[in-house]
Amino acid sequence: MTFKLITLGSGSALPTIDEYPAAHVLNIHEQFYLIDAGEGVQVQLRRYGISPLKIGCVFISHLHGDHVYGLFGLISTMGLLGRKKRLDIYAPAPMGKIMSDHLNYFNDHLPYPVVVHTVGSGKEKPVYSDRVVDVYAIPLSHGIPAFGFLFREKMPKRNVRKDRIAEYGLSLADIIGAKKGKDVVLTDGTVLENEILTYLPYQPRSFAYCSDTLYSSEVIRRVEGVDLLYHEATFLDRDRHIAEKTGHSTAFQAACVALKAKAGRLVIGHFSSRYSGKKRLFLEEALSVFENTALAREGVEFEVPVCRRYK
Amino acid sequence: MTFKLITLGSGSALPTIDEYPAAHVLNIHEQFYLIDAGEGVQVQLRRYGISPLKIGCVFISHLHGDHVYGLFGLISTMGLLGRKKRLDIYAPAPMGKIMSDHLNYFNDHLPYPVVVHTVGSGKEKPVYSDRVVDVYAIPLSHGIPAFGFLFREKMPKRNVRKDRIAEYGLSLADIIGAKKGKDVVLTDGTVLENEILTYLPYQPRSFAYCSDTLYSSEVIRRVEGVDLLYHEATFLDRDRHIAEKTGHSTAFQAACVALKAKAGRLVIGHFSSRYSGKKRLFLEEALSVFENTALAREGVEFEVPVCRRYK
Repeated sequence: MTFKLITLGSGSALPTIDEYPAAHVLNIHEQFYLIDAGEGVQVQLRRYGISPLKIGCVFISHLHGDHVYGLFGLISTMGLLGRKKRLDIYAPAPMGKIMSDHLNYFNDHLPYPVVVHTVGSGKEKPVYSDRVVDVYAIPLSHGIPAFGFLFREKMPKRNVRKDRIAEYGLSLADIIGAKKGKDVVLTDGTVLENEILTYLPYQPRSFAYCSDTLYSSEVIRRVEGVDLLYHEATFLDRDRHIAEKTGHSTAFQAACVALKAKAGRLVIGHFSSRYSGKKRLFLEEALSVFENTALAREGVEFEVPVCRRYK
Repeated sequence: MTFKLITLGSGSALPTIDEYPAAHVLNIHEQFYLIDAGEGVQVQLRRYGISPLKIGCVFISHLHGDHVYGLFGLISTMGLLGRKKRLDIYAPAPMGKIMSDHLNYFNDHLPYPVVVHTVGSGKEKPVYSDRVVDVYAIPLSHGIPAFGFLFREKMPKRNVRKDRIAEYGLSLADIIGAKKGKDVVLTDGTVLENEILTYLPYQPRSFAYCSDTLYSSEVIRRVEGVDLLYHEATFLDRDRHIAEKTGHSTAFQAACVALKAKAGRLVIGHFSSRYSGKKRLFLEEALSVFENTALAREGVEFEVPVCRRYK
């Protein structure tokens, strides 16, 4: 029941030797979701042992090069590796046009289809769903259309409590019924409500990715109670005027978002290369506001453990 | 009087952690020419201490992704680093359309102009010239329009021989005239031809880049006598049938080109990732045909030394 984020790129617009541009993989139950695809993402996947063929779909926050340019090489490599399965890309417009132009110029014999789904500012319903997750778009504030993504693990099926089986002498038919969500009627007519017979094996978990963006109260509202929050922190707060001018946040502001949203844990990244070698300053700044903060680093994993309790 | 090749990417279509896709820099007299621009080229430039702002112009052999995809990030980074100087790109069509689409989507505020010059199969005149070099396109055979590039260092200005100055008691005016290429007339009417008074400080050097291509007799003709030849060797000769099917050469074939063209030195690269960890097989195969062969490796430099002689 894995639920973890693997950072492939913690850098921003100017990549360095150690800091790749934005790219992350979310592993939910061994389903792999790529979030942003900065230049070099295919090599980073290889470096950290994730086959590009495992990537089910891709979520692109916005169409600045440091979040997109790795997508083209990755698509080509997936083809060379023999991918047959459709690749779905969720991104703001005009990603569809960019991709169709690109495929036309470079990959007219790709052995699998690429489908681009335009993410826009619509209602708060999922932009993507499968058997393990619902994904919601979060409007960001970055000068061009930009969206964060909130991943909500699907509610797991309820298990039947062993203590209740013994307590009420439930039959196999009762147990199967209870697993399907039904109440159980005992021979004496007593109705045992499903809720007292069963339990959630674990609480569904959540992750939100918010990059690139100014500090935003709308973001706070959308990510309220999230277990793991990735929020960009391109600048230190001493450079807040540059952050504001360029549509970015500071480490202090990212921590404020986590605090106000009552996030479980905060990961900050998208660091400007101007602070190379001074990462601890980001951490110190964020920790002064929100205790459970970590720095994104290439190859580092952030797991959201299962929380088991009867409910 | 530098004349050297620096390999930034020795790999081919499937990059690995150690092998970047095709990218090389030719340094002639501290003028930097980028030849192909595979994904990650901007980080490779940084890794090997070459500022992207030093790149005067870019030569793209053909429009397969592993030779082009790094160009987009590089162009963006040059802008962020404050480039003002025009960037000239020499590439086959439709690079102009691809670039104008790209700039329209991603870099509409680039602080410097990008100009694409289409390289086609024309006459054998230079596609590019500046004060240190003439560059000629070499038609390659690769299924799509593809061109190698032959870099010929410009003829240096002749120096006046000190022994002749003493021998004939040349005046300052005589020396200045001789440096300008004039003959000198002595007071007794004797005419000293410029050629006996002056010498070439060094022989102009040459480098040819031939990737990607099938073995080609036309290539041999075009690169005859080149000092340094980079020729692709994507496959070993045991896989020649795959090379032929995919428009590539083997190490054996690359060495045959060097031998027949009477090249001074051969560098082979563009290795298929299928041979990872077996590079010595490429070298052994090529060495059996052409002795002065080296393997391209990321960061390795191949210098063409000056050859000084009176002539």
